[in-house]
Amino acid sequence: MNPILKSSLLIYFIGACDASGTDIALDAKATLLHRIDSLNLLIYTCLLTLTVLTIWVFKHRRVSWLHETGLAVIYGLIVGAIIRYGGSTNEVTYIDAHPAPDTKYNLSVPPDIVRFHFPDKIQISSGEAPIPNKTYAYSFRGEIVKVEQNEIDLKATFDPEIFFNIILPPIIFHAGYCLKRKYFFRNLGAILTFAMVGTALSALVIGALMYGCVQLMPASLASSFTFLDTLYFGALISPTDPLTVLAIFSQLKVDVNLYAMIFGESVLNDAVALVLSGAIQNYEKRYSSDGGFEITGFLGAIGDFIGIFSLSLLVGALMGCFTALMTKFTHVRDWPLLESALFVLMSYAAFLIAEVCELTGVVAVLFCGICQAHYTYNNLSADSRNRTKQLFELLNFLAENFIFTYIGVSMFTFPKHHFDPWFIIAGFLTSTLGRAVNIYPLSFLLNLGRKPPIPMNFQHMLFFSGLRGAMSFALAIRNTVSEARQAMLTTTSMIVIATVVLQGGAATHALAYLRIPTGEGQNDENEALPYRDVRSLYQATDTGRSETPRGSTDGGSEKARLARLWGALDSRLLKPLLTHARPPLTETLPGFMRPVARLLTTTRQYTQSDNSLRRTDSDSDLCIDEPQPVPTSIDPQLSYNIRNGYGNV
Amino acid sequence: MNPILKSSLLIYFIGACDASGTDIALDAKATLLHRIDSLNLLIYTCLLTLTVLTIWVFKHRRVSWLHETGLAVIYGLIVGAIIRYGGSTNEVTYIDAHPAPDTKYNLSVPPDIVRFHFPDKIQISSGEAPIPNKTYAYSFRGEIVKVEQNEIDLKATFDPEIFFNIILPPIIFHAGYCLKRKYFFRNLGAILTFAMVGTALSALVIGALMYGCVQLMPASLASSFTFLDTLYFGALISPTDPLTVLAIFSQLKVDVNLYAMIFGESVLNDAVALVLSGAIQNYEKRYSSDGGFEITGFLGAIGDFIGIFSLSLLVGALMGCFTALMTKFTHVRDWPLLESALFVLMSYAAFLIAEVCELTGVVAVLFCGICQAHYTYNNLSADSRNRTKQLFELLNFLAENFIFTYIGVSMFTFPKHHFDPWFIIAGFLTSTLGRAVNIYPLSFLLNLGRKPPIPMNFQHMLFFSGLRGAMSFALAIRNTVSEARQAMLTTTSMIVIATVVLQGGAATHALAYLRIPTGEGQNDENEALPYRDVRSLYQATDTGRSETPRGSTDGGSEKARLARLWGALDSRLLKPLLTHARPPLTETLPGFMRPVARLLTTTRQYTQSDNSLRRTDSDSDLCIDEPQPVPTSIDPQLSYNIRNGYGNV
Repeated sequence: MNPILKSSLLIYFIGACDASGTDIALDAKATLLHRIDSLNLLIYTCLLTLTVLTIWVFKHRRVSWLHETGLAVIYGLIVGAIIRYGGSTNEVTYIDAHPAPDTKYNLSVPPDIVRFHFPDKIQISSGEAPIPNKTYAYSFRGEIVKVEQNEIDLKATFDPEIFFNIILPPIIFHAGYCLKRKYFFRNLGAILTFAMVGTALSALVIGALMYGCVQLMPASLASSFTFLDTLYFGALISPTDPLTVLAIFSQLKVDVNLYAMIFGESVLNDAVALVLSGAIQNYEKRYSSDGGFEITGFLGAIGDFIGIFSLSLLVGALMGCFTALMTKFTHVRDWPLLESALFVLMSYAAFLIAEVCELTGVVAVLFCGICQAHYTYNNLSADSRNRTKQLFELLNFLAENFIFTYIGVSMFTFPKHHFDPWFIIAGFLTSTLGRAVNIYPLSFLLNLGRKPPIPMNFQHMLFFSGLRGAMSFALAIRNTVSEARQAMLTTTSMIVIATVVLQGGAATHALAYLRIPTGEGQNDENEALPYRDVRSLYQATDTGRSETPRGSTDGGSEKARLARLWGALDSRLLKPLLTHARPPLTETLPGFMRPVARLLTTTRQYTQSDNSLRRTDSDSDLCIDEPQPVPTSIDPQLSYNIRNGYGNV
Repeated sequence: MNPILKSSLLIYFIGACDASGTDIALDAKATLLHRIDSLNLLIYTCLLTLTVLTIWVFKHRRVSWLHETGLAVIYGLIVGAIIRYGGSTNEVTYIDAHPAPDTKYNLSVPPDIVRFHFPDKIQISSGEAPIPNKTYAYSFRGEIVKVEQNEIDLKATFDPEIFFNIILPPIIFHAGYCLKRKYFFRNLGAILTFAMVGTALSALVIGALMYGCVQLMPASLASSFTFLDTLYFGALISPTDPLTVLAIFSQLKVDVNLYAMIFGESVLNDAVALVLSGAIQNYEKRYSSDGGFEITGFLGAIGDFIGIFSLSLLVGALMGCFTALMTKFTHVRDWPLLESALFVLMSYAAFLIAEVCELTGVVAVLFCGICQAHYTYNNLSADSRNRTKQLFELLNFLAENFIFTYIGVSMFTFPKHHFDPWFIIAGFLTSTLGRAVNIYPLSFLLNLGRKPPIPMNFQHMLFFSGLRGAMSFALAIRNTVSEARQAMLTTTSMIVIATVVLQGGAATHALAYLRIPTGEGQNDENEALPYRDVRSLYQATDTGRSETPRGSTDGGSEKARLARLWGALDSRLLKPLLTHARPPLTETLPGFMRPVARLLTTTRQYTQSDNSLRRTDSDSDLCIDEPQPVPTSIDPQLSYNIRNGYGNV
């Protein structure tokens, strides 16, 4: 983590071998820095502990007007204010330097290391001992725009990159791993529309409106924002993070389709927004020396977006399938610890491979999580299932609460905030409008083709669930070099805090006000998984759809056909190949493929009793919009019990 | 992690707001660095995956001549060599700088930030575009001793501090959490003697011998080592890390007392060595401008050692007890996720508090782990017990394998190695001698007072189990500024690799050669826990030792008395206070304390059936060197099943 490393950069080179005055002073300084860093970590650990205890009290007393994330933010704000105004400042010391005489340097980028030489003749202003004739290494940090402006001490702040590399991956993986796939696939059309089209539309609308607003503002502000800047703001403020709402939905057992739409959309729009902002930045880098608009650049950005998204998806899915193959064909399941380690390592590798290939690791890890749940989970030993589920649940819980605590603390301690009331007001208004544009027109269009239309109160609830969260904050804090970006960070932080605390707190009342049915008892995947025999379905698709596709009326027939196609592929090829599910490949593949099929089928697949079939659910089932009969009794051992983490908190 | 952050320091300041040529070049460089960092992480992830798969193959085929840690080291060496000789070099660019004219600087330590200004007039040697008139921030990195020597690129290396702050804490905590306390307490005398006296003795002997060896070497070498340097080397090479040996012991069910001695010693001597090396450094800092020896300084160092060790122990134990209190008096156990999060956070807080107070976090986290296992574990819900156990098992597994992989890789890629054949040979010889001095004389002394003496073949096995591991490496890599320290790092790395691969591989044969009995079947805590009624013991101690202290013959009576005292305190005060164990405080405390006692006793403690009593084992039991009757049937739900993590791999 950053503070540890910040200090360690110091400790790193400091020897105790020839202890002169400076060495001892340096050593003492390194120790001090290490202690400050430990203290920073300790502050967050205590804040999280406090949050955990308060969550317990709230759950115990059934308090519903404030959720854990709101709580984390509020604790963060309080402690941030105390640190800002109560703590002593630890001034950063500066010195100005020039290249040494006769220096040759022939690159267009600044050097990585500056070797700074203290000559004997440096002017000493006070009576302390002078620094002897020594040379120190300094590593590159960044450009200084205003030389006068002294940077204040970075108290209790972390490097923004840790959000993308350490905090977000487990959150996103967990979202994919515990996705309630049945309802997700049933509402896939709506989810994809809201997440892909909706987020892009929202970003565009917010970007355009913000640009308009900025032009109306004082000239100094107007000139510092280009259209691309405001568009970037639109992209980063568009993704939603309805943790709070979902936790309440889980408690109140709200309609499963609404739950699936909100959860699915929020999972996907994080990925969409990340890729979108990357595409905007690429466009900026390549074409806009003047901040203008070019059609080829624009098309290139769209190409970027689609290419990066689908390639990242592919990387994640392939790594998931690869893990499934490894767990299927090795007997690593006999050693659950090894198996769990393999699972964690492969999933993190998906993230890293995507990052190495300049793709989006978060997208890869999301789809890796979905594939791990769909295929690998079937091959895991009971111990590993439990262990991976619990591990990611815990990591997700800690990471989420950490990020919300950090949002609160950094509001006061992060030095690169720029409070601009106009921009903040405009941000609040346009982000609300953007959410409305995301939901209402698209719902209208969806309802034209959707058989059970999305009712108006669901639309209002979707609109209301547009809380902003971790992804918006992480994108905003990534780059804070210009004043425009700093204003965006401040606005984003405030929008996140306001929506999480206020909208999150009011969610229960909103549900009641909108008369959305609760207490359905269908919210748990355990209860609602369809245990129909996969073989019958496979035969149905095989014999030219002899069964009437139930529930696929005029509007849904195309969708049902696609779903059926995917279902057939999944149950005939992917599931038998990647898991121990029946029917084995030897039955599903054409005759000439038999030798290969035999090679790819495990004895367990042959010898498995028909009872185990039940574990294999098919996506084709999941996609049909028809209420399934809830089975009366389920063997808990066999059931697919990836419970949603929020439910058990 | 370091590479992520190294790059992020770059990304941090780089804006895309006014995209000029340099900005785009900087941006591209930042992206490149980020990719290189991801690649580094990916290399380790793949190495770990490979290790996991090979471990599985080895376990599957029952290969015993190479253990997983040896495997991790060997894979690391291979990949390190490939990176070193196969990869392209990514030259670090340098520039020399001087203070700007008229600079005032009045501190004795170098500044944190250098503001480096590129003037327009810089000499351009080739045809590339010049850097415009810009200012960049550079952050402090360290002193450069030889200005000529260009630092080679830090390929696939991490900041040494991550070992102390990220990698070691979970390993050490896990060691404490899964300590087999029964046999640990039975052999406490021997373990403490070996770990405390033995490690100090070994450090002293190695330090003195190395100093002698160094004096016989070429003058250039001799002059660069002070006695404190060699003593530091003695301290860092003394702790043992017998993972490999213990894994084999676990598989072969070797004598439990031998197992406990080796495990207990290795756990404690890590902590001792860390505090010892800190004390040596403190001594160095305070007194040795000439590297000489001062008696007051020496006594101060001993005081430091004792003070830091016991205060760290106290911090850890208090945090453990505090967690026990929190889990006892809140109903957080109803939400296992919250409970587990609390457990993890409190344990990490123990580490951080110790670090903030300039104590040793590793010692704190070790004793925190022991207390958590002894008290808190009793209060946890079944889900949390399982979850925390599995979590730390997995973290421990990953961290351990990472550190051994890293030892292999860094042998080739870490730029600060200094191969000095004389020093390496001397290191191997003295570390072997140091181990011998640790074991044989102390065993002789112990056997004077110990009733079942430590047999000679056990002593040989203790000597043979002196593999060096993670702690030695972490201490050696922490400081590599001088040539002397670099030679120490190289020697330590080679000793670790040699002992882990060769001694680890030969452990099975050593067991057979030494005729140490195996297959005892008593190796599992589950099977061997004494389920005597604690109440009877409590009454026994209460009524003036009416029972004859069984097994406490002449030599052991003092020990048995101490053990009994602690046992009484534990079962009368600590257990009833910190856990739900019976008898409640209302029965054990004197009459005038009743109101307080009632306050501190939960209803669960009153209403608990006598059956639950069985869960309460007493340390007093555990300390008596007498074979307990193995109970014939144990309720697995009630048993104290912290199994040793190595057993299930």
